[in-house]
Amino acid sequence: MLNPERFLADLHHLRSFGASGVGKGVVRPAYSDADVAARTWLAGRMRDAGLRVACDEMGNLFGLADGPSLLLGSHSDSQPEGGWLDGALGVISALEVARAAKESGGPPVSVVSFQDEEGRFGVTTGSAVWSGQLSLADADGLQDHSGMPLAEARGAMRHLVTGPVDSAQFRGFIEMHIEQGPALDTAGEQIGVVTDIVGIRDMNITFTGQQNHAGTTPMHLRQDAFQAVSAFNTTLNYRFRNVVTPQTVWTIGHISLHPNASSIVPGRAVFSMQWRDADQDRLARMEEIIRDTAQATAGDLGMQVSFGRLLGLDPVAMDSTLRGALEQAAGTVAPDRWRRMPSGALHDATNVSRLMPVAMLFVPSIGGISHAFEEDTAEVDLVAGLRVLDAAVRNSAGGTRG
Amino acid sequence: MLNPERFLADLHHLRSFGASGVGKGVVRPAYSDADVAARTWLAGRMRDAGLRVACDEMGNLFGLADGPSLLLGSHSDSQPEGGWLDGALGVISALEVARAAKESGGPPVSVVSFQDEEGRFGVTTGSAVWSGQLSLADADGLQDHSGMPLAEARGAMRHLVTGPVDSAQFRGFIEMHIEQGPALDTAGEQIGVVTDIVGIRDMNITFTGQQNHAGTTPMHLRQDAFQAVSAFNTTLNYRFRNVVTPQTVWTIGHISLHPNASSIVPGRAVFSMQWRDADQDRLARMEEIIRDTAQATAGDLGMQVSFGRLLGLDPVAMDSTLRGALEQAAGTVAPDRWRRMPSGALHDATNVSRLMPVAMLFVPSIGGISHAFEEDTAEVDLVAGLRVLDAAVRNSAGGTRG
Repeated sequence: MLNPERFLADLHHLRSFGASGVGKGVVRPAYSDADVAARTWLAGRMRDAGLRVACDEMGNLFGLADGPSLLLGSHSDSQPEGGWLDGALGVISALEVARAAKESGGPPVSVVSFQDEEGRFGVTTGSAVWSGQLSLADADGLQDHSGMPLAEARGAMRHLVTGPVDSAQFRGFIEMHIEQGPALDTAGEQIGVVTDIVGIRDMNITFTGQQNHAGTTPMHLRQDAFQAVSAFNTTLNYRFRNVVTPQTVWTIGHISLHPNASSIVPGRAVFSMQWRDADQDRLARMEEIIRDTAQATAGDLGMQVSFGRLLGLDPVAMDSTLRGALEQAAGTVAPDRWRRMPSGALHDATNVSRLMPVAMLFVPSIGGISHAFEEDTAEVDLVAGLRVLDAAVRNSAGGTRG
Repeated sequence: MLNPERFLADLHHLRSFGASGVGKGVVRPAYSDADVAARTWLAGRMRDAGLRVACDEMGNLFGLADGPSLLLGSHSDSQPEGGWLDGALGVISALEVARAAKESGGPPVSVVSFQDEEGRFGVTTGSAVWSGQLSLADADGLQDHSGMPLAEARGAMRHLVTGPVDSAQFRGFIEMHIEQGPALDTAGEQIGVVTDIVGIRDMNITFTGQQNHAGTTPMHLRQDAFQAVSAFNTTLNYRFRNVVTPQTVWTIGHISLHPNASSIVPGRAVFSMQWRDADQDRLARMEEIIRDTAQATAGDLGMQVSFGRLLGLDPVAMDSTLRGALEQAAGTVAPDRWRRMPSGALHDATNVSRLMPVAMLFVPSIGGISHAFEEDTAEVDLVAGLRVLDAAVRNSAGGTRG
């Protein structure tokens, strides 16, 4: 039977591995001593729950139920300055639901803690390899910021590796996660049932004008690259208004002027243009408007524009059956205090969706804060999330895979 | 008698000191071996011209005529990557005019090459000390980018120092300089008679919003510091339109976002705000609008704004008599090919104006280029400038000081 106290106790115990000493924060990067110790402890908890422990070469740790099972979980590695719940919540809630299912003869539930979701080496690296998105050989060549290759780092877990874990045994994947945004907290709601993981597009744009003396160059003879960025930004915001939805986001987060000096008219400006939306067509339409607006701005100002490589990930729709089960459970556990919402951030579920139906569940982030020691969620909301996950698993028994 | 060939020969010889090997460019920073060698050679040319050589503690080098004289000159130190004419033109044209005056019994003309106009240590450092703007003790404490104090660097010229040079012997100062901007070149004109050295105001402005995840933070809940800068810039350009003249300039040349990452909504933006105009009241009015617009922008977006220290220099009007002499000479030497114009850049004349009447004369900069090895001016225009300077000196004999 579901035991919220046991769940919270395990969640707090997990944060003792790599505890930062600041708030409840943790420093538990992929393959670090703290991360390996945490996974060793998790393996023990999985065994205690009657699950078979398996660990692949990347260090993705599984607790397997017998026969076809629903997979629940997330990741237990953390950001360099991480919160106690980011990933950990999904792993420990999975463990508790699996335990309760075992104890009460419920449907088989397996548990996973993926490795390096936080991208010490790549991006959602462990689940990317497990899902076939990235080969182990390519992953081994990735380096962290200090230049250490992943191949060397994962040696720290060699003693835990049992072999490959076949995804065919799982009929679906549900990941519970903190929202990492302000929507639920601002609205005073407890539960977010994810509709889609949004797609993302990212591209650097460069305006090239003419570097000049800021004292002696009259305004009408300038080709100021910063002015181009400002004009582009204003026009883009205006042109997007009939294209976007309230959930669409777009951001200029990075800008670099050259020569970036107070007395010199900037001759060049490079900036990042990122946009996210759950609809592939909208992403493409936005790209068209971005390129068109940048070209038009450059033309108007007599300047040049160039575009860097477009990087991106497509949107991932959540499985309707699993999502339906989560919505039904949310309506029972948290009536009038839940909503449907997109996930604006990338998760392991993005990669796992290549293999099986996936769904996600959010609980609030206080102040929308994540990727910081101050990350937190009220325990009553953590428990509500646990109950929704558990109810959805019991409601979806019978499977979604044909 | 004025000898343009001799003038050009000396100008080309000066550029051999610290010749960069790229175009006609020079690397001749204040107090460097090349700079000291150049000043040693200049001292010899001054003696050859019948002038008494004097050099103060800062390394400002003078060639003095007897009795009250008109002072002409500029500086012979260069930018780290300098052009052959920036400063050098004013020094060598002064030398030629002084020589011709001596030879033909014209009015007494003294010559100066100020030290460290380019600001290896301060800003127009040599003339700042000579004019009393900056004490020698304070100047000695200034450091270059490598941390060397000026006191140590000027030791390289110790053997040339003769003592203080009394400014009371000069009845005025005329500095010929390259325009360092595109106006004359674009208009196909030869001569610019300077009306004012514009005043300058410089201030950092900081917008503080809220750093956030660029995927999970809805647009309506953002406080994006880059958006604040963009909105401020747009509004400022609009509000300035009824306040400025075609000669007014304003520039955002430097911007620094925090954390300056593609996936993070910028929580802070610091940028430089610089504006220049010949009218003190306009400078003050622009400051009022800048502060008001920044406050309004912050208020509209629910963000904070703070202002750094306001730095500035007041406008300097050129002496009407000396300027009149230059205008008359320009009308003779370059009819229909001259204009009145402000100097958008700071010069030694700014400091010298504290002591005596000053005036300035410009020749074109090809492509408006300066502070670069490619800096250049057609020799026919250099000679036209020389002739205007010479004619103005002869026309202004009789003095402007009471």
